[in-house]
Amino acid sequence: MTDTTASSPVITSDQLLKQWQGHRGLTRRVIDAFPEKELFNYSIAELRTMSGYAMECLGMAVPTLLGVTTGKWPEEQADKPTTKSDLLKAWDHATAEIDRLWAQIPPGRWQETDTAFGQWKMPIYALILYVIDNEVHHRGQGYVYLRSLGIEPPPFYDRA
Amino acid sequence: MTDTTASSPVITSDQLLKQWQGHRGLTRRVIDAFPEKELFNYSIAELRTMSGYAMECLGMAVPTLLGVTTGKWPEEQADKPTTKSDLLKAWDHATAEIDRLWAQIPPGRWQETDTAFGQWKMPIYALILYVIDNEVHHRGQGYVYLRSLGIEPPPFYDRA
Repeated sequence: MTDTTASSPVITSDQLLKQWQGHRGLTRRVIDAFPEKELFNYSIAELRTMSGYAMECLGMAVPTLLGVTTGKWPEEQADKPTTKSDLLKAWDHATAEIDRLWAQIPPGRWQETDTAFGQWKMPIYALILYVIDNEVHHRGQGYVYLRSLGIEPPPFYDRA
Repeated sequence: MTDTTASSPVITSDQLLKQWQGHRGLTRRVIDAFPEKELFNYSIAELRTMSGYAMECLGMAVPTLLGVTTGKWPEEQADKPTTKSDLLKAWDHATAEIDRLWAQIPPGRWQETDTAFGQWKMPIYALILYVIDNEVHHRGQGYVYLRSLGIEPPPFYDRA
């Protein structure tokens, strides 16, 4: 990349990983803030539950990075945790896998275009931002669920 | 930036602008999907209204870029639109201002640390990602509002 204003790089690979894992830590706290029952049963207006959103995020995160690092896009994983404890364990397992796979992304890969999961043709940077944005979007819905249950959500700005 | 895996650049300035403006286009459609009255009066669990969220986003977007480009952080703008039409006009005005100011961000600025609005000390890339993430978060809350009003929100993946 040349160093004009338009093409100047904004963020490095390790900074984006930190950004995502910061979001994932917050999402973990949102999951944990739900009572066991409501995590799996509660929603508004027939939308999905917070556990459903979390499982969608899990179904995208590591499989996407496997595709990014190998060029082979795995089919969706079958494991569907049915308790908060198992869901948080799966979340933590993905956290470690994301760190491990991220380190294998070649520098030139970000600007390559690929057809993710045989369906979505886009640059790799846009694909990974989509996975992150999708998590932020569904977590925002989870904030409304928590508030409507009378539970104060963890602060949005806290990404520790 | 050297070209090791950890420090490899992920996304260019113009790509991040396109990403944000794509999100802003979707947020505009979400605002527009609300009936006039509910845009300003409806929420769940005493959260803010969608117009309140939109005005927060407007209060952050251009003022942040003014700070990024000039190093001087403006006080919050006083204008609070009270109709959907005026809110969308303010949104479109900000869209053009974001394009204009973005082109003035010097290449080295992204990795500088500044104290935004005299309060938040962080790298510029993290500050701008925070503004974008905050919009995605509140828009996700708006999706729940729309569904609970029986209105189908615009598709999340559409960023045209």
